[in-house]
Amino acid sequence: LSSKLPWVGTTIFTVMSKLATDTGALNLSQGFPGFDCSPELVALVDQYMKTGFNQYAPMTGVPALREALARKTEQLYGVSYHPETEVTVTSGATEALFAAITAVIRPGDEAIVFEPAYDSYVPAIELNGGVPVYVTLKPPTYGVDWEEVRSKITDKTRLIVVNTPQNPIGRVWTAEDLAQLAALVHHRDIWIVSDEVYEHIRFDGRPHHSLATHPVLQERTFVCGSFGKTFHVTGWKIGYCLAPKELSVEFRKIHQYLTFSTITPVQYALADYLKNPEHYETLPAFYERKRDLFLDCLRGSRFQFQPTEGSFFQTVSYQAITDEPDYDLAIRLTKEIGVASIPVSVFYRQKNDYNILRFCFAKDDDVLREAGERLCRL
Amino acid sequence: LSSKLPWVGTTIFTVMSKLATDTGALNLSQGFPGFDCSPELVALVDQYMKTGFNQYAPMTGVPALREALARKTEQLYGVSYHPETEVTVTSGATEALFAAITAVIRPGDEAIVFEPAYDSYVPAIELNGGVPVYVTLKPPTYGVDWEEVRSKITDKTRLIVVNTPQNPIGRVWTAEDLAQLAALVHHRDIWIVSDEVYEHIRFDGRPHHSLATHPVLQERTFVCGSFGKTFHVTGWKIGYCLAPKELSVEFRKIHQYLTFSTITPVQYALADYLKNPEHYETLPAFYERKRDLFLDCLRGSRFQFQPTEGSFFQTVSYQAITDEPDYDLAIRLTKEIGVASIPVSVFYRQKNDYNILRFCFAKDDDVLREAGERLCRL
Ligand SMILES: CSCCC(=O)C(=O)O
Ligand SMILES: CSCCC(=O)C(=O)O
Repeated sequence: LSSKLPWVGTTIFTVMSKLATDTGALNLSQGFPGFDCSPELVALVDQYMKTGFNQYAPMTGVPALREALARKTEQLYGVSYHPETEVTVTSGATEALFAAITAVIRPGDEAIVFEPAYDSYVPAIELNGGVPVYVTLKPPTYGVDWEEVRSKITDKTRLIVVNTPQNPIGRVWTAEDLAQLAALVHHRDIWIVSDEVYEHIRFDGRPHHSLATHPVLQERTFVCGSFGKTFHVTGWKIGYCLAPKELSVEFRKIHQYLTFSTITPVQYALADYLKNPEHYETLPAFYERKRDLFLDCLRGSRFQFQPTEGSFFQTVSYQAITDEPDYDLAIRLTKEIGVASIPVSVFYRQKNDYNILRFCFAKDDDVLREAGERLCRL
Repeated sequence: LSSKLPWVGTTIFTVMSKLATDTGALNLSQGFPGFDCSPELVALVDQYMKTGFNQYAPMTGVPALREALARKTEQLYGVSYHPETEVTVTSGATEALFAAITAVIRPGDEAIVFEPAYDSYVPAIELNGGVPVYVTLKPPTYGVDWEEVRSKITDKTRLIVVNTPQNPIGRVWTAEDLAQLAALVHHRDIWIVSDEVYEHIRFDGRPHHSLATHPVLQERTFVCGSFGKTFHVTGWKIGYCLAPKELSVEFRKIHQYLTFSTITPVQYALADYLKNPEHYETLPAFYERKRDLFLDCLRGSRFQFQPTEGSFFQTVSYQAITDEPDYDLAIRLTKEIGVASIPVSVFYRQKNDYNILRFCFAKDDDVLREAGERLCRL
């Protein structure tokens, strides 16, 4: 069987998490919380499972959850999505991203991707016969050169993939970014997939500018979200897509044949749990404290960094310490000092190595302190 | 946004289940149990959720579940799949089917589909640029004309989709079917996706001939299975794929970007639950009794039928009663006598109408009795 994705090997997340487990290292690599979700949320799932909510959910998601999502989006961003026709529950944000990209991309279409990029966008584009066109963001600021983006838009451009807060660099898009993007796509047949799974994790009072908040963007955007990142249940794999009706119709046709529907009792539990806004409003402060704790520990080290703007990732430059390739250093740190991280070069198609590592600080305080101490020894 | 699946409307399962709900009809349409799963299984999920198994599972599935699946397959069919490299857990059999088809099909490839066919195969083929080539099975026997299959194989044929026990007709493939298929594909670059989600639901002592049991087929087959059908939890959306290593490598590359992984605590619970073979060995007798109960009720009617060989579906011919189109009759029966079914024509691309309805008998006994009584009034 000849491969449709010949260049795909084992994902870095699997490699590093496995190495961390095998060596007993502190695992600050793959992005998942080192602590548990709320017992209240678990109790809700159990209640629905125990009382017979175990057969197929509607293909689009259970109405209560779609309504809760529409309500939250209206309250937070002042944008209305109709729960019946514009909100779809998926088996994780990964499925939402894949379905949205599949709904748009046909063979030969071009898709603009800002790298460093999360690893699922490009394979989804390529499996649909699309051609990724890269806009490369570089440290230390990772700013977008909008003239460059304009120059890369052609008659074949059908899609732009946005990710804010952006994994792995923690960059949060501004209102100015949205305006620039809107000016470029206005009156063109270009759609947008916006990966906003870290919407509730951003710092220093920065707002999340969902692409849904800009009317020119909203009408052409599939907003993909996740409950896993927000409620500390990355393993539950439940996400969603918000998109205007005409886009949601096509999105749902794909979703229907990818997974059809998503685990029913968990959907009901999340619908209840979402009713209390505290469950997500407390998240920025919760993670900002963890970011600051981790950075305080690193201040005694020779790593260089800007405090991350959003997501639960902190990138640091190690240029002052060693000139090893980032991949080698990530492996060595895991084995030698027992701290696993992700080399940022893997998020660039050409493996651009700017000597930067990504650490996930969604961990217990003592793990962050211990990791900081070990990293200071370098 | 122009549609990649312009001919796809609302699925018949959604249409009929909604009509049944709206009219208060007995819902024998969409295939899901009308009764609940075992409380023991729910308690296992709760135990894992409560004790912190809520972050990402490995992309391929948790080892305990892959091992349990390999053990079951070895015990039941005498076929060894390596849990590390040849078993992958998915977000329902639907995802497994989509991933397997995506791993094989490239633009212009042909895929042979036996119709009446479950509705997800063809969209998956077409989204990958493939061309479905139909072999039409006709009532009353739905036998396969192997000369016809041979005549439809071309240099472009890359895939054959098999479904045994076959939804909606309940046909169970025989050892002779497997031998015929093997003779056709031997020494050709043709792969097989085998939808075996009803493997544990077959009657009158008939064995399930998994395609894995024939060596020539095994080496080229993706066997797709489901826990939802077996453990009465269709809403949990958890399935799997068994395939030789070279095929699993490609399958996993697709799965990784479709959903990445599947709900962790449920995987652990299923691994434990699978350890007791009674949980699936009792299924044929359990459903055979329900099939017979339903058919006993129908014997007083003018419907004609052969007892179904497998799956939890019974098809019946109504030619002796009316010559209405099957779709119209299904709607009318739902509204007028309060019994929802599925018109079998929807499983044929050309909507061939042989005046046949499909009833799901995975329902409580009193529901089956009441449905039978109502149908006898016709
Ligand atoms: C699906 S595993 C990757 C988790 C994640 O989002 C990350 O580490 O970047
Ligand atoms: C995923 S909804 C369809 C359920 C089913 O398998 C059927 O009714 O045929």
